[in-house]
Amino acid sequence: MSFDARAFAERSRTAGRALLRASTRQKDAALSAMAAALRAQAPRILAENALDLADARAAGKNEAFLDRLSLDARRVEAMAAAVDAVRALPDPVGEVTERWQRPNGLRVRKERLPLGVVLMIYEARPNVTSDAAALCLKSGNAALLRGGSEALRSNRAIEGALREGLAAAGLPEDAVSLVPTADRASMLELLKLDGLIDLCIPRGGEGLIRFVVEHARVPVVKHYQGVCHVYVERTADLDMAEALIVNAKASRPGVCNAAECLLVDEAVADTFLPRAAAALKAKGVELRGDAPTRARIDAVPASDDDYGREFLELILAVKVVRGFDEALAHIARYGSEHTEAIVTGDAALAARFTREVTASAVMVNASTRFNDGGELGLGAEVGISTSRLHAFGPMGLKELTAQKYVVEGEGQVR
Amino acid sequence: MSFDARAFAERSRTAGRALLRASTRQKDAALSAMAAALRAQAPRILAENALDLADARAAGKNEAFLDRLSLDARRVEAMAAAVDAVRALPDPVGEVTERWQRPNGLRVRKERLPLGVVLMIYEARPNVTSDAAALCLKSGNAALLRGGSEALRSNRAIEGALREGLAAAGLPEDAVSLVPTADRASMLELLKLDGLIDLCIPRGGEGLIRFVVEHARVPVVKHYQGVCHVYVERTADLDMAEALIVNAKASRPGVCNAAECLLVDEAVADTFLPRAAAALKAKGVELRGDAPTRARIDAVPASDDDYGREFLELILAVKVVRGFDEALAHIARYGSEHTEAIVTGDAALAARFTREVTASAVMVNASTRFNDGGELGLGAEVGISTSRLHAFGPMGLKELTAQKYVVEGEGQVR
Repeated sequence: MSFDARAFAERSRTAGRALLRASTRQKDAALSAMAAALRAQAPRILAENALDLADARAAGKNEAFLDRLSLDARRVEAMAAAVDAVRALPDPVGEVTERWQRPNGLRVRKERLPLGVVLMIYEARPNVTSDAAALCLKSGNAALLRGGSEALRSNRAIEGALREGLAAAGLPEDAVSLVPTADRASMLELLKLDGLIDLCIPRGGEGLIRFVVEHARVPVVKHYQGVCHVYVERTADLDMAEALIVNAKASRPGVCNAAECLLVDEAVADTFLPRAAAALKAKGVELRGDAPTRARIDAVPASDDDYGREFLELILAVKVVRGFDEALAHIARYGSEHTEAIVTGDAALAARFTREVTASAVMVNASTRFNDGGELGLGAEVGISTSRLHAFGPMGLKELTAQKYVVEGEGQVR
Repeated sequence: MSFDARAFAERSRTAGRALLRASTRQKDAALSAMAAALRAQAPRILAENALDLADARAAGKNEAFLDRLSLDARRVEAMAAAVDAVRALPDPVGEVTERWQRPNGLRVRKERLPLGVVLMIYEARPNVTSDAAALCLKSGNAALLRGGSEALRSNRAIEGALREGLAAAGLPEDAVSLVPTADRASMLELLKLDGLIDLCIPRGGEGLIRFVVEHARVPVVKHYQGVCHVYVERTADLDMAEALIVNAKASRPGVCNAAECLLVDEAVADTFLPRAAAALKAKGVELRGDAPTRARIDAVPASDDDYGREFLELILAVKVVRGFDEALAHIARYGSEHTEAIVTGDAALAARFTREVTASAVMVNASTRFNDGGELGLGAEVGISTSRLHAFGPMGLKELTAQKYVVEGEGQVR
């Protein structure tokens, strides 16, 4: 039986329209039931996951891959708890963000509404299935979920639990739909459905995301890379700067908000570089520096490719800059508009940095690691956007909504 | 000499980066100088426009086309005045839209920044050149302008004046650039420049817009059609309803916010349809109705195609509906998510209508014609979006910005 992408998306669209009539209470009841169903069906989910894992192991997938794919009782409970946590967040739909009155008496407001149908494309992490479904439902969107082929049985079992929860609350099951095939051809068909799918969010490696952007006719909000810099300006508190670069680089090097490059003002390079190098090396970080850096500390010579590179491991590029303008120029050239940080005691320079650096999050005297939906207080995130359109930075529930104009009058005409 | 789209867009990008450092005062000075240059160079602009017009006339373009293309002293003055009006609007860049503090002391805010490089694609209306340039500059964006081939000489003359204004204020001339060729091949090249162009706004006929969406790899905010409905609910004030439908249909039938379909609740059809028909016919409107409509008034039989159709002339589709739910279902099926209006005395139904109808503007007891940047109080508009992503409805200066997170701390780490 071949997959009919259009018919599939049309069912999501119909379900999305029904969600426009769902109250917060009804959506919350569904989220409770979804969490309960995940817990109740944990044995079945784990059994299906074991089959996925066995196949993935037989196919020679590496340990990191198997770890992302694998579920256990604790992880299923965490998925259910995440659904409960989304339920507890405020409903963004209907929120009035601005209101004003016109001279002719018309009352105008901007009010949030769901985007409609959101297509999530992701790799073999089964928890994304329930996380994305919960965020979409709370924000009134129908979720169209296309996970990695290696997780298909796990995802189907999770989808079954989620749809059971929807039905229990009287909401259409098609509000959460897993794409039943994981081949590229069916993904390509979905990506062409402009007018049926309102937003596509790809999550995964850069290859997957570039493939989606290349082929999509539907709007895509994306995030390629996190090439994040920490700039130690000459007025920086050097104790603070040391703690920040160590945290930004070494606390979790494999994530997108980890620092990849340290820029040090030459005025403080003599004092700062030796102590920073010692602290970083104590955490196992390999340093790759330009000549002025290597004149001060022991480091591997940095090649041109080491600037602008997302290492995602315990390697840090280091460069001495002659001052603020050179730091800004370096970030503009090599940064990925994800997260950029300055350590400074100069409020005027901090203000220039926050204004002139175009990144989804700009940090002043704080670690790059805070660019995260949870850390910024969004409650949950569906992804991070590094394209400026629609959303820039972590996307929470509000970023899964649009805003329409509502105009109320007493018969005004033009 | 062939057109190098990438080099061209890179110059815009460099200019856009320079605009990040421009103060409001400097941008306003440039806008003043741009308006002054338009006035000073009016004779040259009109001379070039006369050449464009002669060619267009020789090519057999119709009167409506020639009217859109043609400039005179009054129209050039209106263009200059529009630039002045944009200057007087508040600068959106740097505006803080939200701020909060985290338990760890981090101060978080969302702050507006320019999108970067905005590509406007439009047809042979020379005033769009200066309107779009002014809106982009005020919002800190570099404008890449690709107008219709028939207006190329007029646009070049206008671009010259605008760039003179930029230079006079010490801003880079490349902040406003007209694409020097108007062939489709160069437009296609530009549309592929994901990463260099941050947003494309096509303005013009549906064919042009579909072409752009089909081929773009850069983000597009678009607007296909305005198929706007006026629904006269059974509790409507019928005097008000009559005035609203006449205004919505007949005040300017060729624009996207004009009504194309009247839905009448059957409970008031006997009373309302005859008086509405008389008033509409007095304005020269042809009515096309379903059988229940034609049982009450004299109308052309409506074909299936007449529902969901953007007539853009003095023709109105009319349908009798059995109640609120049927009206909503009709709008969901046939509307274009542009503007939808209800006339009602029932506050609960008005609330349901504003919540459940997904259009960029939803009107309660007001004409559809108010869905317009000027009428809603945005000051000026660069277009209307009917896609929900990023912007929905009239796009003013704010919609030409993104929002980044700015985080200030005292050395917080994770």
